[in-house]
Amino acid sequence: MRLLLINPNTTQALTERLAAAARTVLPPDAELVTMTARRGFAYISSRAEAQLAGAEVLSMLAEKAGTFDAAIIAAFGDPGLSAARELFDIPVTGMSEAAMVTALSLGERFAFVTFTPQLAPWYGEKVTRMGLGARFSGTFTPEDSFENIGTVAEDLRTPLLKTCITASRKADCLILAGAPIAGLAGEIENDVPAMLIDPIRAATIQAAGLARLYPKGASRGSFKRPPAKPSQGIDAVLASWIGRKEEP
Amino acid sequence: MRLLLINPNTTQALTERLAAAARTVLPPDAELVTMTARRGFAYISSRAEAQLAGAEVLSMLAEKAGTFDAAIIAAFGDPGLSAARELFDIPVTGMSEAAMVTALSLGERFAFVTFTPQLAPWYGEKVTRMGLGARFSGTFTPEDSFENIGTVAEDLRTPLLKTCITASRKADCLILAGAPIAGLAGEIENDVPAMLIDPIRAATIQAAGLARLYPKGASRGSFKRPPAKPSQGIDAVLASWIGRKEEP
Amino acid sequence: MRLLLINPNTTQALTERLAAAARTVLPPDAELVTMTARRGFAYISSRAEAQLAGAEVLSMLAEKAGTFDAAIIAAFGDPGLSAARELFDIPVTGMSEAAMVTALSLGERFAFVTFTPQLAPWYGEKVTRMGLGARFSGTFTPEDSFENIGTVAEDLRTPLLKTCITASRKADCLILAGAPIAGLAGEIENDVPAMLIDPIRAATIQAAGLARLYPKGASRGSFKRPPAKPSQGIDAVLASWIGRKEEP
Amino acid sequence: MRLLLINPNTTQALTERLAAAARTVLPPDAELVTMTARRGFAYISSRAEAQLAGAEVLSMLAEKAGTFDAAIIAAFGDPGLSAARELFDIPVTGMSEAAMVTALSLGERFAFVTFTPQLAPWYGEKVTRMGLGARFSGTFTPEDSFENIGTVAEDLRTPLLKTCITASRKADCLILAGAPIAGLAGEIENDVPAMLIDPIRAATIQAAGLARLYPKGASRGSFKRPPAKPSQGIDAVLASWIGRKEEP
Amino acid sequence: MRLLLINPNTTQALTERLAAAARTVLPPDAELVTMTARRGFAYISSRAEAQLAGAEVLSMLAEKAGTFDAAIIAAFGDPGLSAARELFDIPVTGMSEAAMVTALSLGERFAFVTFTPQLAPWYGEKVTRMGLGARFSGTFTPEDSFENIGTVAEDLRTPLLKTCITASRKADCLILAGAPIAGLAGEIENDVPAMLIDPIRAATIQAAGLARLYPKGASRGSFKRPPAKPSQGIDAVLASWIGRKEEP
Amino acid sequence: MRLLLINPNTTQALTERLAAAARTVLPPDAELVTMTARRGFAYISSRAEAQLAGAEVLSMLAEKAGTFDAAIIAAFGDPGLSAARELFDIPVTGMSEAAMVTALSLGERFAFVTFTPQLAPWYGEKVTRMGLGARFSGTFTPEDSFENIGTVAEDLRTPLLKTCITASRKADCLILAGAPIAGLAGEIENDVPAMLIDPIRAATIQAAGLARLYPKGASRGSFKRPPAKPSQGIDAVLASWIGRKEEP
Repeated sequence: MRLLLINPNTTQALTERLAAAARTVLPPDAELVTMTARRGFAYISSRAEAQLAGAEVLSMLAEKAGTFDAAIIAAFGDPGLSAARELFDIPVTGMSEAAMVTALSLGERFAFVTFTPQLAPWYGEKVTRMGLGARFSGTFTPEDSFENIGTVAEDLRTPLLKTCITASRKADCLILAGAPIAGLAGEIENDVPAMLIDPIRAATIQAAGLARLYPKGASRGSFKRPPAKPSQGIDAVLASWIGRKEEP
Repeated sequence: MRLLLINPNTTQALTERLAAAARTVLPPDAELVTMTARRGFAYISSRAEAQLAGAEVLSMLAEKAGTFDAAIIAAFGDPGLSAARELFDIPVTGMSEAAMVTALSLGERFAFVTFTPQLAPWYGEKVTRMGLGARFSGTFTPEDSFENIGTVAEDLRTPLLKTCITASRKADCLILAGAPIAGLAGEIENDVPAMLIDPIRAATIQAAGLARLYPKGASRGSFKRPPAKPSQGIDAVLASWIGRKEEP
Repeated sequence: MRLLLINPNTTQALTERLAAAARTVLPPDAELVTMTARRGFAYISSRAEAQLAGAEVLSMLAEKAGTFDAAIIAAFGDPGLSAARELFDIPVTGMSEAAMVTALSLGERFAFVTFTPQLAPWYGEKVTRMGLGARFSGTFTPEDSFENIGTVAEDLRTPLLKTCITASRKADCLILAGAPIAGLAGEIENDVPAMLIDPIRAATIQAAGLARLYPKGASRGSFKRPPAKPSQGIDAVLASWIGRKEEP
Repeated sequence: MRLLLINPNTTQALTERLAAAARTVLPPDAELVTMTARRGFAYISSRAEAQLAGAEVLSMLAEKAGTFDAAIIAAFGDPGLSAARELFDIPVTGMSEAAMVTALSLGERFAFVTFTPQLAPWYGEKVTRMGLGARFSGTFTPEDSFENIGTVAEDLRTPLLKTCITASRKADCLILAGAPIAGLAGEIENDVPAMLIDPIRAATIQAAGLARLYPKGASRGSFKRPPAKPSQGIDAVLASWIGRKEEP
Repeated sequence: MRLLLINPNTTQALTERLAAAARTVLPPDAELVTMTARRGFAYISSRAEAQLAGAEVLSMLAEKAGTFDAAIIAAFGDPGLSAARELFDIPVTGMSEAAMVTALSLGERFAFVTFTPQLAPWYGEKVTRMGLGARFSGTFTPEDSFENIGTVAEDLRTPLLKTCITASRKADCLILAGAPIAGLAGEIENDVPAMLIDPIRAATIQAAGLARLYPKGASRGSFKRPPAKPSQGIDAVLASWIGRKEEP
Repeated sequence: MRLLLINPNTTQALTERLAAAARTVLPPDAELVTMTARRGFAYISSRAEAQLAGAEVLSMLAEKAGTFDAAIIAAFGDPGLSAARELFDIPVTGMSEAAMVTALSLGERFAFVTFTPQLAPWYGEKVTRMGLGARFSGTFTPEDSFENIGTVAEDLRTPLLKTCITASRKADCLILAGAPIAGLAGEIENDVPAMLIDPIRAATIQAAGLARLYPKGASRGSFKRPPAKPSQGIDAVLASWIGRKEEP
């Protein structure tokens, strides 16, 4: 089983952090390959940036089409996720969706913990849009600010741990939201009285599981691949994929 | 007041149909200017196409930044709407959101009527994501198929009218969903026992209203314009807008 | 376009405050006329008072029937709103409904800010009844008490501003709820990091917009004007309107 | 225990029908006294009529204040219910609320059955406003029309029975909605495979129960009786009750 | 009318406390008989313990089948409630369900107050599962710990009163959750600005009311008694009840 | 990785059917062992039977405690699931929960298809209780009755396929609900235009995934194992597990 981890951010170091966390939970028959966005932003932190990153994710998937068994969109906002499910006939997972879905099977209520209040409204919006508001206790963040997104997991480790302890009073499961803190869950879980969910691990496990269950992905219903369609002015590889005539 | 109607589809005839409907409700101090997408698809009919169209919408808005008082995204899926609200300091409205919001002030329950069952799941998804499921009675479509998207409003006029009459038993307001049937509401409203909402008219009125109330748009809260940010590989005008240094 | 602003409270000074705020956003072709309740309470602050005020609103509308293009019920509880939509064939808007509906197009989450905790439960009830709980962050009020309802906007200006700043952490849009603080939004908006919604402005803009879209108001579906009906013991003008034989 | 059954309709025959059904479930220590509206409509069938009837209900309660242990508002729309709970220090129940609340303890899902589709949207609105949409399966009505509201329970008995049988496929409990069909549940219950709820019986039992639990009614929280307040132009007895100085 | 109060906990003293509170609201024609679990736990405080207690409740009901008019499951988690409604043709009520249902008729929002934060997540889960989240303000508990579950109502009386006063800011009605504090509501209600609901009183009143309305209980719809069925290895009396051939 | 498949029904043939379906998706490092209930019912088809089966599931898990890495409760009602998560420190999954959670990542809306309308209300209840009503399109069943629960998948194959095709108009994913039709999804998936979810496969994949992510199961938050507690009269092995002193 070949899994493709797509980092929609353009930062290679982030790809490596995400891959390291993902590899801790790989099934024995799975191989993980990574890919870093060439267009876009060093770190996606707004709806607008995610809108553009979603288009890049589709191009990346088109480029690798037919060579993987499942793909993981490795940014917490899941840019391009539902579009990818339509276009490609392999399972595609996203960090925020996979984390929430995992939370539903571990406890009654879940919360988000992230490293900056700036991301909280957008992240919380994901829950409402999934229709999971009845199981959600809110987003918790440290008061402290950070200087370097690349080392925020280390720099804010103590405040994040404290935030997790506080959030544990409101939820059974805490989702450590945001790619820059991938892997942190494994390091602090013994000090927190709630379950910790590392979204990249959840998304990797989910991708592997869906690949066993649905080798062709979400290929039916309203997520069936749309009919071939001409386009103009979009990325050539993607345009070719969308417009191809040979589709069954 | 200058309003920019952006058609995210690449079909010029559709832009004209939309503008004609919009002009029937323009306030006397408003001028409507149109713009048609140069990249993308003749007619957006999937989540994947909307993902790409949303990026194009942002580029179009960047190109016209500073020259309009409000903008209307004239496709029923509202591609790029929340991203546009973040990036630009004018009000931006979308056809599906404006139609739903109008329905809330006209009746207790609303329904969608559209011309093909293929669009129903994606359109219905919009309601759930808005958190308005408690007011929604479903999506109704004719059984008949159509041949030409450009004349579907005329070709399916009778089946659409019958569908509206059926849907009237379930809802106070019917939203005639989809840009290709813009204007139809005005033609059949006397024959339908429910209120008819023409999304492009609703979006135009809403754009004009918000321009009076909020000349700078949704420029605060989590929709505040993100800080300047470098990018790579995206549309040059948009990249310049996102990355500009002179932002206050 | 002639808009009728109905103040369901019996305080003339409040009518003037409301009208002043409304006039800041009038379209050029709209004229605003005001009317103050002759029966009822100086300031409505309970469900029971609103129940009675709603009946008075219907009488006021019956008295002016046929002479206006749209009406605004200018009290935050929207007394008589849905009843008015049934009985009269012009658009009718209310302050709380219009404010909430505006919030849906400006941000993801909204909150109420009002001047006394006594009103909070009743106001919050409005949100649940609209079915908008998934987008609502609660009602925020100052701890300070006030002495004079007529000058509460001035007397509590600083505490209200502080409350707005606090509430900004939880919501993109703040609705300044309650007729006595009409106009305050315009004065403090530069000091608050969220969008401020002044309900009377929102209701005025909405009334003007609906008058363009639906000159006959919510005149179909379950809000269609009920058949003529005899009554006994109710206000004569209203009884005549409800019982008239000449209705088409 | 003295229970006051208030019929907000002006039809005496309806009061008698309601009282007859209520008396079948009276506890041995309860006495039922009835009162028929002197102002209003023969039969309330719209939001506007209910708005006015709610004011009359408050006047009727004010007239009898201090002489009853609990009151029942005997119209399915519950006109004036929450206002009555605020103003009077005895338990007050309503037919639709009591019926829904009873359904929650008898089954998982409930539905309404009523005698005309005209009432369906307004009745269904009650469910959404109670926040009980997740337990509701819709409103079912016969296709047949009726001529005389006074004998609709008899005239449409067969179609209503058929409608109940159909609705039984969708719900565990059926609420026979509308005062004119009070008592019908008892007559057809053996022929219907779902539980039947007669709203007037449910409201009577609930009034008696609340009178035992809360002799002083819902007199705290946001339903606490508002402070004394002057008014102008409203019903004299009610004005005196609202404005009394001697309130503790 | 004979009411059976079943204490699913094995503590006799708790049965007496519950019965004492229940007797304060008994209708004159009702007799209350109690029964204490012989199998299970001194005090149920987890989902697992409730799972087992629910089975014991069914056995207790089978043992008394045919000798009572209604039954009350006197533990806040309502163990075995929906199963009991299926199996037995008398009304069966539970403390948490009855308390919530009562709250819906007394105010807009309700909250839980209980004596330990350990029970809060499980109790809150009950609300979500009932579909009443839109009316719920959360669970409030004292910070203080207790030593003896048998005297917690007395030992934590002051902290519980303080907690009630705090919770009153968020809700109209407070449900004093948990059998060990049965009766406390009656003692502190004059000191709390919200309505207090004593679940055992609510459940008793509801059982008496349903016995008048539905002498055969929830005996139709999906709660109809299942067909006779053989079993193996379960409690003999219960097995005989479930497997009996003579069922009509 | 050792996975324990617990069949809460007492029918060995059903265990074999479930295991056969589960084995089609086992990861290479997983071994599946099965266990069939010794107490209870041949086939669980009511809330009451599930209440009792849940207790048996806990006994079965206690008997095998410490010898497995994860467990699957193989009945669609998930009897004892949340109780099992509390008591045992391994992941435990259930067929209905796992199927719903899988559906959230494959499409926007899901529906149930099952073989008899008798099960529909209880199964639908599961969705509401999970808080997933906004994503659910209802339960679909054939009209045909069946004679033998052991061969219902074969006997009703054609009607079930037709039902799936009908349900495909309302949902992206169809959950084939009920242990007796385990495996059917794999046989008919090519003939159905929606995604088919086989709950036992989904539960098996989820158990394997959670075992990688959370070797100790839902062992924190409100699902933390309760403190040791004495009991009386319950199954000896389970009583010993619940009451053990050596717990950390």
